[in-house]
Amino acid sequence: MGRWEPGAGGRLREAALDLYLERGFEQTMVADIAERAGVTARTFFRHFADKREVLFGASVELEERSLAALEAAPATASTLDLVATALDAVVDVIGHDREFARKRHAVIMANPDLRERELIKLAHLSAVVADGLRRRGIGDAEASLAAEAGSAVYRVAFQRWADAADGLDLRDAIRRSFAQLRSLTAAD
Amino acid sequence: MGRWEPGAGGRLREAALDLYLERGFEQTMVADIAERAGVTARTFFRHFADKREVLFGASVELEERSLAALEAAPATASTLDLVATALDAVVDVIGHDREFARKRHAVIMANPDLRERELIKLAHLSAVVADGLRRRGIGDAEASLAAEAGSAVYRVAFQRWADAADGLDLRDAIRRSFAQLRSLTAAD
Repeated sequence: MGRWEPGAGGRLREAALDLYLERGFEQTMVADIAERAGVTARTFFRHFADKREVLFGASVELEERSLAALEAAPATASTLDLVATALDAVVDVIGHDREFARKRHAVIMANPDLRERELIKLAHLSAVVADGLRRRGIGDAEASLAAEAGSAVYRVAFQRWADAADGLDLRDAIRRSFAQLRSLTAAD
Repeated sequence: MGRWEPGAGGRLREAALDLYLERGFEQTMVADIAERAGVTARTFFRHFADKREVLFGASVELEERSLAALEAAPATASTLDLVATALDAVVDVIGHDREFARKRHAVIMANPDLRERELIKLAHLSAVVADGLRRRGIGDAEASLAAEAGSAVYRVAFQRWADAADGLDLRDAIRRSFAQLRSLTAAD
């Protein structure tokens, strides 16, 4: 084993995304990524199991943090407060780097297999949040509905954030989408 | 080409679902389905392109009917009214046969590939509904959010309908989920 390179993970991630955008995900080899990042393929595999993990490696962390946030929320929180708390945890993981999120999204949208994978990951996160809500005593259907509504809010907010020309941050974008959901359902 | 058998489609569909449940989707061959339905494999392929189409053949019809319903809705309809109208069109296609819907759902849940496919089909339907809303002049983010919220309502309603011991129909289940979404967002 070579020595551990602390900055290599970030450099590899950036190199990978740029190559996925330039050449396409399928056409990019691990060797290309390692070369661009100035490391060996072996170093790549110390950070990522494969090419896809560069894109989806955060999903376990997202789930764990969402669940932890749900568990830590005050007993007085409404169901939708809880969902907002779970989304805050997501923001903590991905909200600080819009450029990365944007590139990642562009790579995923350009590839049907990656789009499917992203859909599955989001559905899984929604199921995890619904379980967390159930563990707090929220009824089965309400938990699913709230988690799915949160997922809808998140997707729309993410798009708004990714597209924003101004400095809108992800947390504000989520707040705005929640407000829009409220006005949609109130208008009816 | 042999003669057209009008009842064969329904018999094949039923035979296929029963076999998928008994043996698993992967383990069922087209020849088995045809045999159980008392027809030839050739007749199977006159009705379905493959084994999966027995399960997903309705998705184009669902999309077309949802869009047509959106186009036909009155100009005064609110965004959420429109989503409800699109869901009504879905109910028109699948709501009359709970036993089939239940079996189909059980088959899909038992198989990861089919679960993914179902997820993709539902996401596609949601995107189609969002497009239909945009064509009626609804803003981009509101259209996506409303369509996704409708998708959440539908999934929860479907589950409620499938699980119901009483004679709850799908339309009522959807109405109930809409009400639940409203009370969720109002409580916050």
